[in-house]
Amino acid sequence: MSTPAPEKEVAAKQDGQEEEEQVVNPWEVSAGKGGIDYDKLVDQFGCQRIDAALVDRVARITAAPPHRFLRRGLFFAHRDMSELLDLYERGEKFYLYTGRGPSSEALHLGHLIPFMFTKYLQDVFKVPLVIQLTDDEKFFWKNLSVEECKRLARENAKDIIACGFDIQRTFIFTDFGFVGGKFFENMARIARCVTYNKAVGIFGFSPEDHIGKVSFPPVQAAPSFPSSFPHLFGDNDQLRCLIPCAIDQDPYFRMTRDVAPRLGYQKPSLIESRFFPALQACGENTKMSASDPNSAIYVTDSPKEIKNKINRYAFSGGQDSVELHRKLGGNLDVDVPIKYLNFFLEDDDELERIKTEYKEGRMLTGEVKQRLVTVLSELVARHQRARAQVTEEIVDAFMAVRPLPNMFG
Amino acid sequence: MSTPAPEKEVAAKQDGQEEEEQVVNPWEVSAGKGGIDYDKLVDQFGCQRIDAALVDRVARITAAPPHRFLRRGLFFAHRDMSELLDLYERGEKFYLYTGRGPSSEALHLGHLIPFMFTKYLQDVFKVPLVIQLTDDEKFFWKNLSVEECKRLARENAKDIIACGFDIQRTFIFTDFGFVGGKFFENMARIARCVTYNKAVGIFGFSPEDHIGKVSFPPVQAAPSFPSSFPHLFGDNDQLRCLIPCAIDQDPYFRMTRDVAPRLGYQKPSLIESRFFPALQACGENTKMSASDPNSAIYVTDSPKEIKNKINRYAFSGGQDSVELHRKLGGNLDVDVPIKYLNFFLEDDDELERIKTEYKEGRMLTGEVKQRLVTVLSELVARHQRARAQVTEEIVDAFMAVRPLPNMFG
Repeated sequence: MSTPAPEKEVAAKQDGQEEEEQVVNPWEVSAGKGGIDYDKLVDQFGCQRIDAALVDRVARITAAPPHRFLRRGLFFAHRDMSELLDLYERGEKFYLYTGRGPSSEALHLGHLIPFMFTKYLQDVFKVPLVIQLTDDEKFFWKNLSVEECKRLARENAKDIIACGFDIQRTFIFTDFGFVGGKFFENMARIARCVTYNKAVGIFGFSPEDHIGKVSFPPVQAAPSFPSSFPHLFGDNDQLRCLIPCAIDQDPYFRMTRDVAPRLGYQKPSLIESRFFPALQACGENTKMSASDPNSAIYVTDSPKEIKNKINRYAFSGGQDSVELHRKLGGNLDVDVPIKYLNFFLEDDDELERIKTEYKEGRMLTGEVKQRLVTVLSELVARHQRARAQVTEEIVDAFMAVRPLPNMFG
Repeated sequence: MSTPAPEKEVAAKQDGQEEEEQVVNPWEVSAGKGGIDYDKLVDQFGCQRIDAALVDRVARITAAPPHRFLRRGLFFAHRDMSELLDLYERGEKFYLYTGRGPSSEALHLGHLIPFMFTKYLQDVFKVPLVIQLTDDEKFFWKNLSVEECKRLARENAKDIIACGFDIQRTFIFTDFGFVGGKFFENMARIARCVTYNKAVGIFGFSPEDHIGKVSFPPVQAAPSFPSSFPHLFGDNDQLRCLIPCAIDQDPYFRMTRDVAPRLGYQKPSLIESRFFPALQACGENTKMSASDPNSAIYVTDSPKEIKNKINRYAFSGGQDSVELHRKLGGNLDVDVPIKYLNFFLEDDDELERIKTEYKEGRMLTGEVKQRLVTVLSELVARHQRARAQVTEEIVDAFMAVRPLPNMFG
């Protein structure tokens, strides 16, 4: 948003060679020329890469194939996953926490990714989940009314529920609806541990930013601690928390992990994703943008819109002519349809075959796009059917402040 | 507390002649040599003096004698009281809002003053009252646990209730207990209108202060708006608010009045008191301090303690010897027992008589102190009897989130 990049981080990046600036924080993602440098980000943020051994371990522990987002590297970084898995193997459960800032009515595929992945985690680990809709955050960062932010949160909740979460194990809440009580107490405890200077270092606030922005980080941090949800976790304030999110949310949880020991709480673990590229993306230098409708496939798009957008706007790594393509083959590194298939085509063998055929020029861009149109049209149609079933009563049921007696069952 | 004085205000004061610094904000009250200069404070803060005409008008409108705190100038300044009274005369009601930061278990007489005065206002205007106990503020500014702040808030509520508030017209709440819902929405609306720079200008925060402090002012501002209490005021978001408080709380409400029009809300009116002097006070340069037990009369003090403290510590304006006193008389301007009688002796004629006799040397310090001991012992004993009747159930009843159907009756 209008928040400038954290100064310290920019400064850190400007050390060494004079390189292009890469800015990743919750309100701004901008890459240098070559796209986001994820290796650099991992070093800079101080998290760990997910390697093949960790993916195998998740598969073994859960006795289930790892989600394609995990086995194909969309979720690529973590904090303390190994420790969390050690404990899980010894019988110590955890809960999942993810969320969304409800700034627009229609979600695009990039918005769904953390939820699709979180559903997988919930299914294979059989653990409870809290989903925070930060309507207050959007009120602070966008020129919207409280009422509009609340409405968007509720609309977004329907799309989230349509991802298939288990109502026996899932609590969805909005900040305007839920903040108070033990949650508010934890916000206060967290806030007391973070100086304004520290917040500026992490989030890059400027002195002309309003104090609503300054007061928000504890709201996003609080769900990392089980004592914020007494109706779910009673007085178990040591239950571990695993947060699946895009890596731009890491600053919030660096702050959270920093304060946790001072409060006598456990640090949350994280599993973090890359950004889902825009249709036009060359490299991976942008997130999909909710403000440019042609940069993204929306969950409300019709099959015709999906087909048009992919055919017209999806950046191709194919050659300029059929003859040249047959001879030189496609460039998988920049081809957006291939990237999208990588995320959404479940069949590993078919994906490998498409990549090989395309790379060697036997498959044309149009054919790859055709396959992607089919995959995404099916996914979006399935989502639309599921969302149509989500009534106001179902939203109320997910948002009811209630115990979840079988949440570890 | 550790918050430095607002720099702008200090700078403003240093204009003109080189004078001693006078600092008045919610966490620090320190005067120059001559005691607090209230005229200067009124000019600096931009509020109005209460004059005899306004006191008379209150008496006429309410058809009741003005409270001694009002007729004797303890409440001495206001904002928009005249406008509020205009509206009241035309049939437009208002509600009262006052509060306390619960930082200690035993209250002293200075703590009771806003509540004694607020009870009078409630009685004569027949209006509802909300009382905020800022347990979160004390958590932010003192080295106390959340639990201890909540416990102190509840203990303090008993002393407040003992002042005689009408349960049919009074809602008491703690921030940890009540923040959420419409109250939290108003906090967010207020916060979005105040930049960090602005907050520093008003409250003097330093960059090493934690963000809990920065996030607090909207919590104290929110009760100024009736929409924060939907259970009381429904959707009447234009109901006027009158805030009786000590003048050190003015910065919060300057901020509140500044943001009100931008939110489409009414500015709260204020009626503001001087500080109640410490027993040892020469001039009026200190508030009573909760940390020095000999500087104040506590509501828990025994008659013997009251007698000892007044005889030993109350600063006298009498002369060094009886002979000299008979000749020169007492100095009323610095005599603490006279100041205290000014606040607590109800009978105007007796007070005038004592002042004349003392000033002219016919009455001795010991005799004035003797009268004060009687007055305060009775007041404290009456308070202790009332407080002993306040059960946990009564506290719960005052704090219940409930409509008050006859609150304007």
